[in-house]
Amino acid sequence: MNNEIYLDNSATTKCFPEAAELVCRILTEEYGNPSSMHHKGVEAERRITEAKQILADILKVNSKNLYFTSCGTESDHLAIAGCARANRRAGQHLVTTVIEHPAVLETMHALEEEGFDVTYLPVDGDGVVSPEAVAEAVREDTILVSVMHTNNEIGSLQPIAEIGRLIKEKNPKALFHVDAVQGFGKAQIYPKRMKIDLLSASGHKIHAPKGIGLLYVADGVKIRPTLPGGGQQSGLRSGTENVAGMAAMALSAKMLYDHLDEDVDRLYALRERLIGQAQAIEGVHVNGKEGRGSAPHVISLSVEGVRAEVLLHALEERGVYVSAGSACSSNRPHLSETLKAIGTPKELLDATIRLSLSVMNTEEEIDAAAAALAELIPFLRKYTRH
Amino acid sequence: MNNEIYLDNSATTKCFPEAAELVCRILTEEYGNPSSMHHKGVEAERRITEAKQILADILKVNSKNLYFTSCGTESDHLAIAGCARANRRAGQHLVTTVIEHPAVLETMHALEEEGFDVTYLPVDGDGVVSPEAVAEAVREDTILVSVMHTNNEIGSLQPIAEIGRLIKEKNPKALFHVDAVQGFGKAQIYPKRMKIDLLSASGHKIHAPKGIGLLYVADGVKIRPTLPGGGQQSGLRSGTENVAGMAAMALSAKMLYDHLDEDVDRLYALRERLIGQAQAIEGVHVNGKEGRGSAPHVISLSVEGVRAEVLLHALEERGVYVSAGSACSSNRPHLSETLKAIGTPKELLDATIRLSLSVMNTEEEIDAAAAALAELIPFLRKYTRH
Repeated sequence: MNNEIYLDNSATTKCFPEAAELVCRILTEEYGNPSSMHHKGVEAERRITEAKQILADILKVNSKNLYFTSCGTESDHLAIAGCARANRRAGQHLVTTVIEHPAVLETMHALEEEGFDVTYLPVDGDGVVSPEAVAEAVREDTILVSVMHTNNEIGSLQPIAEIGRLIKEKNPKALFHVDAVQGFGKAQIYPKRMKIDLLSASGHKIHAPKGIGLLYVADGVKIRPTLPGGGQQSGLRSGTENVAGMAAMALSAKMLYDHLDEDVDRLYALRERLIGQAQAIEGVHVNGKEGRGSAPHVISLSVEGVRAEVLLHALEERGVYVSAGSACSSNRPHLSETLKAIGTPKELLDATIRLSLSVMNTEEEIDAAAAALAELIPFLRKYTRH
Repeated sequence: MNNEIYLDNSATTKCFPEAAELVCRILTEEYGNPSSMHHKGVEAERRITEAKQILADILKVNSKNLYFTSCGTESDHLAIAGCARANRRAGQHLVTTVIEHPAVLETMHALEEEGFDVTYLPVDGDGVVSPEAVAEAVREDTILVSVMHTNNEIGSLQPIAEIGRLIKEKNPKALFHVDAVQGFGKAQIYPKRMKIDLLSASGHKIHAPKGIGLLYVADGVKIRPTLPGGGQQSGLRSGTENVAGMAAMALSAKMLYDHLDEDVDRLYALRERLIGQAQAIEGVHVNGKEGRGSAPHVISLSVEGVRAEVLLHALEERGVYVSAGSACSSNRPHLSETLKAIGTPKELLDATIRLSLSVMNTEEEIDAAAAALAELIPFLRKYTRH
């Protein structure tokens, strides 16, 4: 097998060695329980304080507004379900889009069963929701709007700042949650400037370990905890703190944000390079907007006449790892709601692959992946025709 | 400062170096998302399968009945709230004890707000609940009984097998949850033989990382997920799996269970050694049963005339780390519900420390800790008298 070319970074990333080493050190040396009153506890608590401050500086918020969870899914769920249940008296209406991650959509479905009323907004052919449509959907009894920053399947970017502004113009009491699991680490995100009240992020999408998530909660926002217990993290999220995960997430985030703009430029260049070569292959279509209109790291390709799963495994044999649809959610390939929402023709729904980049990828890898696509697609189209 | 003598292992443990190294390797080499269809995903999925099999062999259960969560608190909450909500039609009555961990008690309180009826059973002077009292509390409409295996503050052991037998005799449909966060890794626990339907355990109490928990769910037991989303772990617990945490928890458990009986014997000897020396100090009382009647690793000492917090910090200056009451739950020292429940005199409630051992502790450490107690207690009693 060739060297591994890992282009599935929207599913998960390789941990930065520095972050993995920090995890190892904390697990074996600074292993105290932050709730302990002695030195080992104080040492662990200090790690959490430092981690929050690093992340707060990146988001330009106060560290007291940050909480850690076990993953992006938990951050989304705590933000949405916790907010809805705590603010039920103010109203029972929620607004979201049809292309959100299952962590958001499944939470919305659960809230519908509890009696909440949810509006699911469509997106355009590039996977973008209209800010005006969001504003129009917001009512007097709307308590929360949830819109993702970056779509995980096609990389579409939502106009978050404009949506935030229009929500507050229409109903200043309506809260705004942003699922930034795919956006954090790839874009400058400033909750205050963007009028975001709740923001979710995940460690393992930014070269930190799996098992750690972040939630920003603006001042004055009421959240009902979804996990009761010992009252850690000001009672918002009980359970002994995953100190190593928190510290590693902060370190990885800092390593990314220390030179984010250059990295983003480089990722866009890699993306363009791959897209250019992919578009030269007959019957290959790129989903979503061109250039800076999409996220720097996600490339969604629909390939006429080739099943995504077949192409995925053929690429795998060359050491190129990609995903079919969104690999975030289940072992089974399924027809993507996002692809349906952007009007992907039926015959291309199971013929779409996602290549997702990280700062670890190189031009050579991109060229090798593109060459593999150029070689495999005509071959597979010829020999796997129905 | 002297060498560190860490006697706060019921709060959290030092990670085994082997487990920390495994974490590091998985984070940087086998970092795939188990949901990915390519080799990196398959490799990660295999790690989970292996981890479950190791833990299943220890518990003598089928690996398909095991699920991972983010911590013991989440396991307790998912077991109890998930079971109650899924079985509401069968009845709305729950039974537990007054000395459970806050993860259990706070979940019970939340369920009371949802309309469930909860019976809280008292314990005797040694912190043990009567199996007959449990059986008596079980009614026709009882859907779940939750009793902890080992108390985290005084180390009392509950007669789990007898409780399990009596519950099923009284009402075969009533389910039995056991919070084994303090017992797993310190005792042989066999859910099937003990008629346990749901069992919770935690990684960081057994020399694995923080941020990983285990839940056993017997065949046919209905649980409503508390964290919806991408449908990982058969839909019971969404969120990208913490593969490294799972593998490390299994490795640490295997390392403990490979020679558990010898270790337990050694821990009991260390415990007796410490208790013997502590009891020779005037005005020091040991809480809970003697010898094998209590857990091998927890020693609760009430010290007349010395505030626990003062003693804790004086010990800390000698490098001996202990806790005041239960350090599991909060930064603030609070009056322990468990100590109240066993009838601890009011003046000793804030004069009780917990020393908790692990397989890493040595005789020399125990003797040094006991010597520090013998020296400090009379001194502190004299100079910090009210």
